[in-house]
Amino acid sequence: MSRAQQQFKPIPQTPPALPGNPATPEKVELGKQLYFDPRLSASHAISCNSCHNLGLGGADAEPTSLGHRWQHGGRNAPTVFNAVFNTAQFWDGRAKDLEQQAGGPMVNPVEMASPTEHVAEQLKGIPGYGVAFAKAFPGEADPISLANVDKAIAVFEATLITPNAPFDRFLKGDAGALSPPQKEGLALFMDKGCAACHNGINVGGGMYAPFGVVERPGAEFLPPDDKGRFMVTKTPSDEYVFKVPTLRNIALTAPYFHTGASWDLRQAVAVMGSSQLGIRLQDPEVTRITAFLDSLTGDMPKVTYPDLPPSVATTPRPQP
Amino acid sequence: MSRAQQQFKPIPQTPPALPGNPATPEKVELGKQLYFDPRLSASHAISCNSCHNLGLGGADAEPTSLGHRWQHGGRNAPTVFNAVFNTAQFWDGRAKDLEQQAGGPMVNPVEMASPTEHVAEQLKGIPGYGVAFAKAFPGEADPISLANVDKAIAVFEATLITPNAPFDRFLKGDAGALSPPQKEGLALFMDKGCAACHNGINVGGGMYAPFGVVERPGAEFLPPDDKGRFMVTKTPSDEYVFKVPTLRNIALTAPYFHTGASWDLRQAVAVMGSSQLGIRLQDPEVTRITAFLDSLTGDMPKVTYPDLPPSVATTPRPQP
Repeated sequence: MSRAQQQFKPIPQTPPALPGNPATPEKVELGKQLYFDPRLSASHAISCNSCHNLGLGGADAEPTSLGHRWQHGGRNAPTVFNAVFNTAQFWDGRAKDLEQQAGGPMVNPVEMASPTEHVAEQLKGIPGYGVAFAKAFPGEADPISLANVDKAIAVFEATLITPNAPFDRFLKGDAGALSPPQKEGLALFMDKGCAACHNGINVGGGMYAPFGVVERPGAEFLPPDDKGRFMVTKTPSDEYVFKVPTLRNIALTAPYFHTGASWDLRQAVAVMGSSQLGIRLQDPEVTRITAFLDSLTGDMPKVTYPDLPPSVATTPRPQP
Repeated sequence: MSRAQQQFKPIPQTPPALPGNPATPEKVELGKQLYFDPRLSASHAISCNSCHNLGLGGADAEPTSLGHRWQHGGRNAPTVFNAVFNTAQFWDGRAKDLEQQAGGPMVNPVEMASPTEHVAEQLKGIPGYGVAFAKAFPGEADPISLANVDKAIAVFEATLITPNAPFDRFLKGDAGALSPPQKEGLALFMDKGCAACHNGINVGGGMYAPFGVVERPGAEFLPPDDKGRFMVTKTPSDEYVFKVPTLRNIALTAPYFHTGASWDLRQAVAVMGSSQLGIRLQDPEVTRITAFLDSLTGDMPKVTYPDLPPSVATTPRPQP
């Protein structure tokens, strides 16, 4: 247990504060409305929750998400749960925090596809949001802005944490919280080297690593045209480097990898063994590691579905 | 007030029972999960809530909904709120109740597009649903069936009622619940003839009527190729006949008409006056009637977002 306590940390009971973006009940509530509001998309049919579904472990059930005009996104949608604890956002870390991330999909042409300047215009056309933004950002002359949209969504997302997983209870000293196979899986997870990257509070999410560091996995898992973090940094050593994903609630968020090409957590574990560690994990080892990963499922956030302010005659309409 | 009390009835505080489909907490909870589960669609991206969004007055913000492969539905999505009180479901009444309605969009090729036999197969591939169906339908040998999916969704939908609208409080004797313009609007609504069709508990939803009975509206509101209930009954007198929609929460559910072609409630009121009653409502009359319609917005149901049982390696995958 003490070895695990050195490498991992439990999810706290209460959401962390975001620097420079204090949470108030009004801002969290506004962020929740925005998170669920499909009118942030050009079509008025896609919301943050479409791809980061609070009922599906904070992700979706797709290899890559369906966006505007049924286009597929480039990479598997990462879970929003506990994302606040990641060192950066997106598979390539191109957003430094939740706030910077929130603005991305809204204006990405293959995702929600809103023109950047349209987001605030759309919301200004919905009278109820005028009231809600004024309460969430008191004293501001023009509170409905894309920057404030990002801030409100970020403070809501920061509430989406999943404490009290069996592994968290174990880390806090409850030796019986993990079953014997789960404890064996945890020992393997540390001994084999998984925890070299998947560590910390999010059992991942804290660093970058090349995918295929020892042995290149098949092209279905590592397609040659997605060079990962290289596309952000343009540094040759960042080719095929990705953010190490969190393994929190991993049993809820199939399919796996940045391609979403594996539907089987056991397969994903085996591929990680060969590609990252250069080892062939035996079936019983995969079973135990997977049992340990099951212990990372925490309490899901309880979210009451928000009432969204209604559109009126002058509200900008969905675009085809 | 007594005249209104003869023509309308308040929404009750508690959901009505469904004949032959008793509600239990387990069945309601299962129905809620199914209502929000996009894996009931072929793409795994569209749920009941996509088009009957609990945050948007139980409808969506589209003229006609976006379905499988970005296809548009044929008619504007009606609200799910208080639908249990309608005499039949769909704009053409082709489903006699919620249970019969629930099965429609799941297997409609332009909506959720699941092959009929696939719905139960999909759910049987998600282990958590085995447990949930067994609890909701105790004693059944094979509880995961399309018929039981429909039943569970129906009992959940029956909980989606919106009591305590100002108009309900007025009907129960609180004369101050309506403002003076709203009372004038109510009087106009009854005097001019609106209440001949829009009456009862749902202020509509209780009968069928030809659209354009006095004067045919423009083709944007009444396109010639949608003959409405005629397509169900094949009776010539049912050409361009539609179910009279509920006006409950109408201020929340723009756009209007079966085409969703009007985004302006005032315009919709004026079109109804000319097409159905043969009168040109004056601007101040439209203002008052619209004020009355605002009084039909009730308390939205408080729904906690459900945790959906996770997919596993053997769960059937989304279809392109």
